Amino acid sequence: MKEIKLISPRVANVPWQEKPEKLTGAPVWRYSSNPIIGRNPAEGVARIFNSAVMPYGDEFIGVFRGEQTNGIPYIYLGRSKDAIHWEFDKEKIPFTDEAGNPFMPVYAYDPRLVKIDDIYYIIWCQDFYGAAIGMAKTTDFKTFVRIENPFLPFNRNAVLFPRKLNGNFVMMSRPSDSGHTPFGDIFLSESPDMVYWGKHRHVMGKGSEWWQSLKIGGGAAPIETSEGWLLIYHGVSGTCNGYVYSIGGAILDIDNPSIVKYRCENFLLTPEEWYEERGFVPNVTFPCATIHDSETGKMAIYYGAADSYVGLAFTYADELIRYIKEHSVVSAGDTEIGIR
Amino acid sequence: MKEIKLISPRVANVPWQEKPEKLTGAPVWRYSSNPIIGRNPAEGVARIFNSAVMPYGDEFIGVFRGEQTNGIPYIYLGRSKDAIHWEFDKEKIPFTDEAGNPFMPVYAYDPRLVKIDDIYYIIWCQDFYGAAIGMAKTTDFKTFVRIENPFLPFNRNAVLFPRKLNGNFVMMSRPSDSGHTPFGDIFLSESPDMVYWGKHRHVMGKGSEWWQSLKIGGGAAPIETSEGWLLIYHGVSGTCNGYVYSIGGAILDIDNPSIVKYRCENFLLTPEEWYEERGFVPNVTFPCATIHDSETGKMAIYYGAADSYVGLAFTYADELIRYIKEHSVVSAGDTEIGIR
Repeated sequence: MKEIKLISPRVANVPWQEKPEKLTGAPVWRYSSNPIIGRNPAEGVARIFNSAVMPYGDEFIGVFRGEQTNGIPYIYLGRSKDAIHWEFDKEKIPFTDEAGNPFMPVYAYDPRLVKIDDIYYIIWCQDFYGAAIGMAKTTDFKTFVRIENPFLPFNRNAVLFPRKLNGNFVMMSRPSDSGHTPFGDIFLSESPDMVYWGKHRHVMGKGSEWWQSLKIGGGAAPIETSEGWLLIYHGVSGTCNGYVYSIGGAILDIDNPSIVKYRCENFLLTPEEWYEERGFVPNVTFPCATIHDSETGKMAIYYGAADSYVGLAFTYADELIRYIKEHSVVSAGDTEIGIR
Repeated sequence: MKEIKLISPRVANVPWQEKPEKLTGAPVWRYSSNPIIGRNPAEGVARIFNSAVMPYGDEFIGVFRGEQTNGIPYIYLGRSKDAIHWEFDKEKIPFTDEAGNPFMPVYAYDPRLVKIDDIYYIIWCQDFYGAAIGMAKTTDFKTFVRIENPFLPFNRNAVLFPRKLNGNFVMMSRPSDSGHTPFGDIFLSESPDMVYWGKHRHVMGKGSEWWQSLKIGGGAAPIETSEGWLLIYHGVSGTCNGYVYSIGGAILDIDNPSIVKYRCENFLLTPEEWYEERGFVPNVTFPCATIHDSETGKMAIYYGAADSYVGLAFTYADELIRYIKEHSVVSAGDTEIGIR
């Protein structure tokens, strides 16, 4: 962590396990006690996966995709002292409208959690007469007020940047279709007020590498670094027996993040452990959050595994960024401003 | 035109042909000299269809989907003294960015033309790393300045309301997928500035009637009437030999147009003439504009026919609205505010 720096708070208690002696490929290693959240983690919830966590005071808090035993996914709040062992609220998060009246989505899944200034935003995918992005804000994790749906359907995998750029909120999303979507690029949008969104820009599309040759989508909230915005995303391959979701990495321009500076041609992690290859949707590693410490550069990557578990992996930010830069392949489309 | 009134300017020279003596079904009749624009209408343009026209001074002006002989659609300007015989510019409309630099879409099709206050807006479908809505404004039909793409892909059939509502511009659109889209509902979005869009609301989805049982999409700009916003739209049926596009009608609440007040269960017009059944895409009647006179209630509906021609049909606004009300079937989804 000399030349490459994280521009983010100190998180001294970032969960951590040292790098194993033998490690090939990307400098990313799994927690040896994965999965950290197993089956039937709470009453009425069969599986928790594709979930987002962050520091909160001296402890940790998170929003979790809880697949209820009736098959409908909702978002559950969880708390942890060490970011590894989690306790979940019994009831799903009680979203309200601005007036305080209950306003629950029909379903909600794949939440992300991002703090901007002093407000925490939860962003998820829900029914809006079609799959689309839902959002809510909270300051105390007791009241959760929904704000306007930012985009028309069909859209998934929305992630907010952790600070405004040029005075505007910035959100990444992945326009989709009404089904399992055999295509998908990452776009950026801006908003002055979290009500109206515009200045949409294309960030990057699928890659020529097999593991991201079908579609891609944002994963964890982008991390500000001295090299640009570090983006941990997912890339999907279409096989004769279904989709395979791997974890990829890219670095976006710090002022114009629709411009991709570096994009790693190799996956950072791909399904190979039993909890990634087996489950409700086999062969999925789906990153939704990181916890990272600017002092040591330690990073913990939280990812959904096989739509059944939560997995944890570690890396050093400087090693990861160096690896991405050393293995970078960017296309002409990646480096464009992304307006047509 | 006693009880039911159009709230729009006088257009004394609205093109017109009297109602034929024998007319069954909806009170809509075709111009006897249809199609008004035939094949190879201009040098390098094989077909003109799905185009929008409006009064301009004492004459008429329009934006036309010109399918070039290389197969790429662009938008051409046309002028007419009678709104029936049209002359087209040789070159496609030369769109620029705000700085005046050329900024042409990769392709552009199905334009609509709407005047709000003293500015004319052209709205079309184009490539934005996927099919999406493009927009430009002009005051003189000499310079055409593109403004921000309002929405992420994938989207088609966007139409502006002819005035602001509650201080905001309002646009109707039809979220789509990357292909021929076997689904599709109409949504509304608002903008304070034509840069940022939000407060998205669902207006209505496909109907149970065969002619609109696959998808629907906005057609002509909504017309303000004493009964609400009169919407001429298209409804699509999926058959074993392809899609069939018919013309439908609905009336939206004047203050909250995401609420459908009346929706005609019968099509207003469906392909049956040779120029509607035969062509590049057989069995298409696709409305994009109306010219209407508030004094007499005379309305001329311009529609693309078989992706090959422009057709013209006539109606009286009061008869049409009465027919829509008498044959109205609205679903629960139609009458909702349309937020989830």
